[in-house]
Amino acid sequence: MPIINLNGPKLSTAKKKELVKRFTEVASEVIELPEEAIIVEINEMPPENVGVGGELLSEKEDK
Amino acid sequence: MPIINLNGPKLSTAKKKELVKRFTEVASEVIELPEEAIIVEINEMPPENVGVGGELLSEKEDK
Amino acid sequence: MPIINLNGPKLSTAKKKELVKRFTEVASEVIELPEEAIIVEINEMPPENVGVGGELLSEKEDK
Amino acid sequence: MPIINLNGPKLSTAKKKELVKRFTEVASEVIELPEEAIIVEINEMPPENVGVGGELLSEKEDK
Amino acid sequence: MPIINLNGPKLSTAKKKELVKRFTEVASEVIELPEEAIIVEINEMPPENVGVGGELLSEKEDK
Amino acid sequence: MPIINLNGPKLSTAKKKELVKRFTEVASEVIELPEEAIIVEINEMPPENVGVGGELLSEKEDK
Repeated sequence: MPIINLNGPKLSTAKKKELVKRFTEVASEVIELPEEAIIVEINEMPPENVGVGGELLSEKEDK
Repeated sequence: MPIINLNGPKLSTAKKKELVKRFTEVASEVIELPEEAIIVEINEMPPENVGVGGELLSEKEDK
Repeated sequence: MPIINLNGPKLSTAKKKELVKRFTEVASEVIELPEEAIIVEINEMPPENVGVGGELLSEKEDK
Repeated sequence: MPIINLNGPKLSTAKKKELVKRFTEVASEVIELPEEAIIVEINEMPPENVGVGGELLSEKEDK
Repeated sequence: MPIINLNGPKLSTAKKKELVKRFTEVASEVIELPEEAIIVEINEMPPENVGVGGELLSEKEDK
Repeated sequence: MPIINLNGPKLSTAKKKELVKRFTEVASEVIELPEEAIIVEINEMPPENVGVGGELLSEKEDK
């Protein structure tokens, strides 16, 4: 613990690596806990499964 | 914010579109916030990954 | 199952009642499952625990 | 309700079946609610989408 | 990782202790990972914040 | 969207402010989306509601 969960778009391995590294650094520093205690989970959500303002992201992207 | 998250079965694009539209309308009206502020996330769970009453949904569906 | 989870602001009991009723109706109709199968969870997040665009909601409200 | 959610590695059907059965038994006994009221959700996270101590699990497994 | 999350009713400390112990044992055994790797989170949901079948649990309990 | 969710210990307002700011900056930069699109949610979990390695955090802290 602590656990950081990101729901976001499809990401490359390099970007996942960078997010995990930097989120962990920020959390470790601010919460004052060792990096080993910090878990990051990344959920890549298809744009068809996310709605903003009542519309699917996939619809917005098609415009 | 607010964020509405649905964990449910596999859905067609048309049904996702309708759920996003109607959940957003309900939330906007009841919580009294603009639709643009409302996010909906849909997680389609395989029946093999959901248990009800101690049994996998996939097992129940096979009966 | 299905499970609908709302993360949002503090709400009155009447508003929670209405959200649960109407979310359940929409989900039951669109997903074509009985209302008894549908669960709604409401998490009331303090504005101090939510950030949008890099700022706490509580800070935005103070402006 | 109650709802038990597991975020973990890829699992065989047999292991999912056993987890659902045994989590439900424990929850039903300790919380003193019927097994029918208990839902279990299993999210299988690719090792590339999970970070521990600032590193992707997939990187740790490659070492 | 793995992470087990329970959304359920108000629980005594003794019951939380037992749930954490037994969920961890089951997960460690079935997933074949050491107990130290397993995290359990318990969210105690007020009955007024949970709906089943379109009704708040608090309403059902009042009947 | 994207949504960053932190489950962690009790935090001061200043620390929440810093976490929201810096998580948003990292996500915006790496995912290449504007900061306005990014939401951060912070859940402060009582040590009595979190288990690591089969033990409540509150028990570990008492030792």
